[in-house]
Amino acid sequence: MKSFITYGRDSHFPIENIPFGVALINGEKRIVTAIGDYVLDLKMLEGIGYIFQEKKVFQTETLNEFMGCGKKVWTDARNRIQKLLDADNAELRDSEVIRNECFHLMKDVEMVLPVSIGDYTDFYSSREHASNVGEMFRGKENALMPNWLHIPIAYHGRSSSIIVSGEDVRRPKGQTRPDPNAAPVFGASKQMDFELEMGFFIGTGNNLGENITVENAEEHIFGMVVVNDWSARDIQAWEYQPLGPFLAKNFATSISPWIVTLDALQPFRTEGPKFEKELLPYLQTKGNPTFDINLEVKLKSGKMDEAVMICESNYKYLYYNMRQHLAHHTVNGCNTRTGDMMASGTISGPTKDARGSMLEITWRGTEPIKLPSGEERKFIEDGDTVIMRAYAKGENYTVGFGEVKAKLLPAK
Amino acid sequence: MKSFITYGRDSHFPIENIPFGVALINGEKRIVTAIGDYVLDLKMLEGIGYIFQEKKVFQTETLNEFMGCGKKVWTDARNRIQKLLDADNAELRDSEVIRNECFHLMKDVEMVLPVSIGDYTDFYSSREHASNVGEMFRGKENALMPNWLHIPIAYHGRSSSIIVSGEDVRRPKGQTRPDPNAAPVFGASKQMDFELEMGFFIGTGNNLGENITVENAEEHIFGMVVVNDWSARDIQAWEYQPLGPFLAKNFATSISPWIVTLDALQPFRTEGPKFEKELLPYLQTKGNPTFDINLEVKLKSGKMDEAVMICESNYKYLYYNMRQHLAHHTVNGCNTRTGDMMASGTISGPTKDARGSMLEITWRGTEPIKLPSGEERKFIEDGDTVIMRAYAKGENYTVGFGEVKAKLLPAK
Repeated sequence: MKSFITYGRDSHFPIENIPFGVALINGEKRIVTAIGDYVLDLKMLEGIGYIFQEKKVFQTETLNEFMGCGKKVWTDARNRIQKLLDADNAELRDSEVIRNECFHLMKDVEMVLPVSIGDYTDFYSSREHASNVGEMFRGKENALMPNWLHIPIAYHGRSSSIIVSGEDVRRPKGQTRPDPNAAPVFGASKQMDFELEMGFFIGTGNNLGENITVENAEEHIFGMVVVNDWSARDIQAWEYQPLGPFLAKNFATSISPWIVTLDALQPFRTEGPKFEKELLPYLQTKGNPTFDINLEVKLKSGKMDEAVMICESNYKYLYYNMRQHLAHHTVNGCNTRTGDMMASGTISGPTKDARGSMLEITWRGTEPIKLPSGEERKFIEDGDTVIMRAYAKGENYTVGFGEVKAKLLPAK
Repeated sequence: MKSFITYGRDSHFPIENIPFGVALINGEKRIVTAIGDYVLDLKMLEGIGYIFQEKKVFQTETLNEFMGCGKKVWTDARNRIQKLLDADNAELRDSEVIRNECFHLMKDVEMVLPVSIGDYTDFYSSREHASNVGEMFRGKENALMPNWLHIPIAYHGRSSSIIVSGEDVRRPKGQTRPDPNAAPVFGASKQMDFELEMGFFIGTGNNLGENITVENAEEHIFGMVVVNDWSARDIQAWEYQPLGPFLAKNFATSISPWIVTLDALQPFRTEGPKFEKELLPYLQTKGNPTFDINLEVKLKSGKMDEAVMICESNYKYLYYNMRQHLAHHTVNGCNTRTGDMMASGTISGPTKDARGSMLEITWRGTEPIKLPSGEERKFIEDGDTVIMRAYAKGENYTVGFGEVKAKLLPAK
């Protein structure tokens, strides 16, 4: 496949991708896709009849209506957009007036939150992450809780504070107890962290009382994004027992603006890890249930000109896959709705350089990292920018997610 | 105050109340209030100009638009509705044609979910409940976690599965580990429980990065409902560490259909409990920060003709109040939005008959209760109906919430 729009083989947005997002164009939120260095205005193309669907779904300010239409509509739309961008198809290629209107340089447009998000769930599906954290807090022998190898552990997160790449994050205040023998204190968090995650969006949901099986799960999943699950470790340590993380997480969760469809990820299917304990039948998946997606985290302090790589991981390292996430989430009859987001939990890998949080990278602050600027970091400092990128490598092309980037501002 | 609609002094819906809800009338969702045994169609009254507001807010299918207008609009609307119902005011009293159209017998209309709920948070604010549960699982010495007397502990719940009174609940399936030395098993929960709670709805929210103080909290709160936080104890016990309850709760949460405003609850203000440890300043409240609201739970098995009382508690027993809930929730800059719901956690009281869950009433099944039918109950069985009611007692009147009622259906 070749487009009349040109781009390099490392571009995240070749004709093989066709992600979906929402851009602010002339002050209006418009549904778009990305190709090379451009965003392509799908609202306009649908409006003038270049994209024809039973129902017009690109005229709204979020992707929800489109996402609710189901897999056939998603696939048909992607196919049609690829056809429009095809170097051998004259329709759009030779319509100069329309081309001048519908393409915008990506660097000139602001991307906004693409989905009206209903419920947000965060899993805890990296064995390496759960083991690292467990070892730090409970010792090596008891690193994994007894349930971990049987259940994709998860908790409900806060959807109101999910923000898009580019929005700054304010350091939260809260209760911590730095001295276990003294009373708690109030103030700005001193242990700000990121968590490298990926998330998927529900396209079509299920009714209350029904469930989605591992076999059908992917039919319900619209696509994926990169997620930075910002965490305040000192607030978390003091508040999390017995009901889990709350204020340590719900001040901000950043996502990348482009939703990459499962259709675009098909060439990158791969096996998951071997399961150490036999899973209950409702969690058993066949074939290649996960995806080979490279993940990177870079950090840039206010004194640095260029960001430095601090983590290289891969989505395939996750112990539990998306099919298992969705099957587990609904096995009790819990309903899901168009626009719900489910994140993976921190994706750490088997090596030290694949640790997906500062907590793990600096082993709770005991092994600070050195930055090229000469600065040291135990956790994230005010003015630091965290940039996460994800991409899958084909033979001559890349299917990428772009990035999720956010700067930490000082507490108010 | 006296209405031309007559009712007894125990009616939950006197002219002093004026709760808000949404009823299905001729197949259409319409915003209504309650008076005596009637629902009153506010959509119609606004439509014909009997209720005049700057913006028409009763023409939609949920209360969200009205709730987003802020406290002055809520108070003005309530005052105007009271005026319309006043025995001394001829406007509605003597307009027979309109009266015949806008009143419907409550028993003839179905109530639906009144709000499009965004995020749902569940607190854990009853000291008696936290102590009872802690004692059962960790022994009397360690009953309360060290953070409990300093923080209103909470977790995020699932909003998609919040249902309204009258909807049946399906017993969930899931993973449990009845034998701690064997592998987990899959099947229907065997320890179904209710939790007696109350919840409040956010009317006007706060922006990300800002916070709501204890002093301003009540300006943001639209009103309250009764909540049954259905819980599957065996699923909970196996899944909850370390991130809190998930599938044990998210299969269903039932709420009462009428939202009682804080204006209606003013006469029932009361002190809360004394705080054993001095709270951090952002959690210190003055005056009478809570409300004297009687709470009841009744149970009816399939063999019984009448429900039997199994719990009598009171909202005022809660250690932490709503002002503290909202101030704590936002102290880290977490944003809230119109329609968010925050529940209290199980409201148990100081006496045995004030325990707000079967877990506590039967002390984890070790002290089953006897029903008038001769049956025994450790937990809730298929075909059982759980009915919760809440009401505040004035000198000659009652301000009530009606009930939240749901029957447990067998697992599929």
